[in-house]
Amino acid sequence: MKAVGVVAEYNPFHNGHHYHINRAKEISRADIVVAVMSGNFTQRGEPTILDKWHRAQEALANGVDLVVELPLAFSVQPAHLFASGAITMMTELGIQSMVFGAEHAEWDFDKLVRAESKFKSNQFDRYNATYATVFNEQLQEATGVQLTEPNDILAFGYFKARYEQAAPLDLIPIRRLGTHYHDLQINEQRQIASASAIRESVKDRRNNYQTVVPQRTINDLAELNGVADWNELYPYLRYQLIQAPIKTLGTIYQMAEGLEFRMKAVAETAENFDEFIHEVKTKRYTYSRLIRVCLYVLLQITDAEMKAHFESPYIRILGFNRHGQTYLHEIKKQATVPIVARMNRELKNGLANLDYRAGKMYEQLNRTELQDMRRQPIIQD
Amino acid sequence: MKAVGVVAEYNPFHNGHHYHINRAKEISRADIVVAVMSGNFTQRGEPTILDKWHRAQEALANGVDLVVELPLAFSVQPAHLFASGAITMMTELGIQSMVFGAEHAEWDFDKLVRAESKFKSNQFDRYNATYATVFNEQLQEATGVQLTEPNDILAFGYFKARYEQAAPLDLIPIRRLGTHYHDLQINEQRQIASASAIRESVKDRRNNYQTVVPQRTINDLAELNGVADWNELYPYLRYQLIQAPIKTLGTIYQMAEGLEFRMKAVAETAENFDEFIHEVKTKRYTYSRLIRVCLYVLLQITDAEMKAHFESPYIRILGFNRHGQTYLHEIKKQATVPIVARMNRELKNGLANLDYRAGKMYEQLNRTELQDMRRQPIIQD
Repeated sequence: MKAVGVVAEYNPFHNGHHYHINRAKEISRADIVVAVMSGNFTQRGEPTILDKWHRAQEALANGVDLVVELPLAFSVQPAHLFASGAITMMTELGIQSMVFGAEHAEWDFDKLVRAESKFKSNQFDRYNATYATVFNEQLQEATGVQLTEPNDILAFGYFKARYEQAAPLDLIPIRRLGTHYHDLQINEQRQIASASAIRESVKDRRNNYQTVVPQRTINDLAELNGVADWNELYPYLRYQLIQAPIKTLGTIYQMAEGLEFRMKAVAETAENFDEFIHEVKTKRYTYSRLIRVCLYVLLQITDAEMKAHFESPYIRILGFNRHGQTYLHEIKKQATVPIVARMNRELKNGLANLDYRAGKMYEQLNRTELQDMRRQPIIQD
Repeated sequence: MKAVGVVAEYNPFHNGHHYHINRAKEISRADIVVAVMSGNFTQRGEPTILDKWHRAQEALANGVDLVVELPLAFSVQPAHLFASGAITMMTELGIQSMVFGAEHAEWDFDKLVRAESKFKSNQFDRYNATYATVFNEQLQEATGVQLTEPNDILAFGYFKARYEQAAPLDLIPIRRLGTHYHDLQINEQRQIASASAIRESVKDRRNNYQTVVPQRTINDLAELNGVADWNELYPYLRYQLIQAPIKTLGTIYQMAEGLEFRMKAVAETAENFDEFIHEVKTKRYTYSRLIRVCLYVLLQITDAEMKAHFESPYIRILGFNRHGQTYLHEIKKQATVPIVARMNRELKNGLANLDYRAGKMYEQLNRTELQDMRRQPIIQD
């Protein structure tokens, strides 16, 4: 069986995702579509609007044959590590091609990857510029283009990771549909809106998303009592920043250059998350980076722990239909990492520990059902 | 100047406390009354109904001349350590006598202390009995009495600590007024009620405490929006028990015999504090002990940290009138520990660190004013 892979957050699943799945199958001429989906937190470090089970179910109801979880050690990371983790998953899943959106699908990304290998690394130590700024100055100089759009950056990451891992995988960037990632309004005359516009619609209780998401998503969103975000997580973050010893905070992943002192001091006075994150922000860090560090603090993920998990991927199956099941059967023999259908004590304390903790935090935040223990993969008829 | 000391929680300050202050002054013929008062958490590990500044103000308005804070390393401890800390404070404050309530004020506590020194220590290792049970079996055998009432137990602790510290201090137990510590109802025909009955009255919004507390307390209680207790602290405790590594939990003060595994496992499923504490309870531990351990977990107090703070007392002044001020002036020369009027960065990170963290937790819980930084002692006219 020939499989095409997609990497997704489905936060929540909308018509644009549905279109993407159909296009992926069409272009790749694959038999089935495998989605590698983030768990309960996004790449940016935000809790997802619906839990991973609801989002997996939405995908299965709309053309995906198999949904697996992208482990948190890959999913809540800067683009290059996120992309690297995704490519690892694709390889382990025996996937032949991967289709993804990019703002500039026409670019020769392999050429950009080759250009990067010649960058001067000392430039990245400048204290008053983010990594992305320095990176783009050098890319501009070498190739005449800049990577500034989020999907272009991810696309670059996929090509780079394929090169580094020598992954046997076709990479197929496609032009994204005519909606901008940052659009915050739903245009009810159209069938496509951005995921963030849909989340805002739920948050503001306008709930005008009926034309832009499939029925399954309409049902799931209708059940929500509000949207829990960092405003609701902040009391826990604040608690931890105040009460934990500075030494413990210093061991957190990506806590660098004394950021723990800054965060601890700001937490003592900032009454809400917006105030906190604005006061912590400097030119050196993007908001995305800082929000991710907030999540690492919240989940108490140390540097050593994150690195160990990054080096030990596993495949957690969230759901499948009978095509997906047949495919799973085929690839089981060749996968070099564990394929996990159910959480158990050993996984909970081992390979899946970070995802387990993220699930517990999500449960505490949203009062949802158990996210990991006693859950079985969804079987779609 | 001759000073009499009282040890109190004033949670909240009521007519019984007022009576006690007058009696203490009368019996001891002292010039002034010094109250050594718990901060924002009680001996049992519960947050106080009003913050330490309100409670100090109530005491100053009702006959106390000087209020100092009993540090958390003394105040949130089993009776013998609580008592030992209190005696240390009395000595440092140059106090000549201390008056305290006891259910059996007529007992010869010194005799009980001598009896205890001959107990067999191996009896205390029995896994299915609390320390108090084993202690009382032996005391009964040696002296014919048992220490079962809370103020008798504290009284014993004071005598024992005086003996061990060779403290130059008169200890004067007095019979408690005719209300039982555990009474949960206010009798509005009388002027005395227990502090717990008053707290329940506020919690239930019956607010029938007008006859049993002085005006200042009436004013303070009237400003409260509900009473924050362990139900409100539980989300933070639960968060910490779930997210912190078992090894970190194992370093917490009084976390012994694998209790950290039990607490972590129960936190994963218990939805509220009552459920949690009932499931954690075994014959080996009293509820008071377990609630204190919960507070140590919440404030992330390690064994080493607690011991260091216990060994390094300091005197934090919460308020005084002009008699108290004169007295403070007198004793400053002889005190061997720091006398602190204002918190600063060094104290915050050093001697007063536990109290500072407890204050921050209290602020987060009750959205009260800052508890330590930028606060000055209350000056009562």
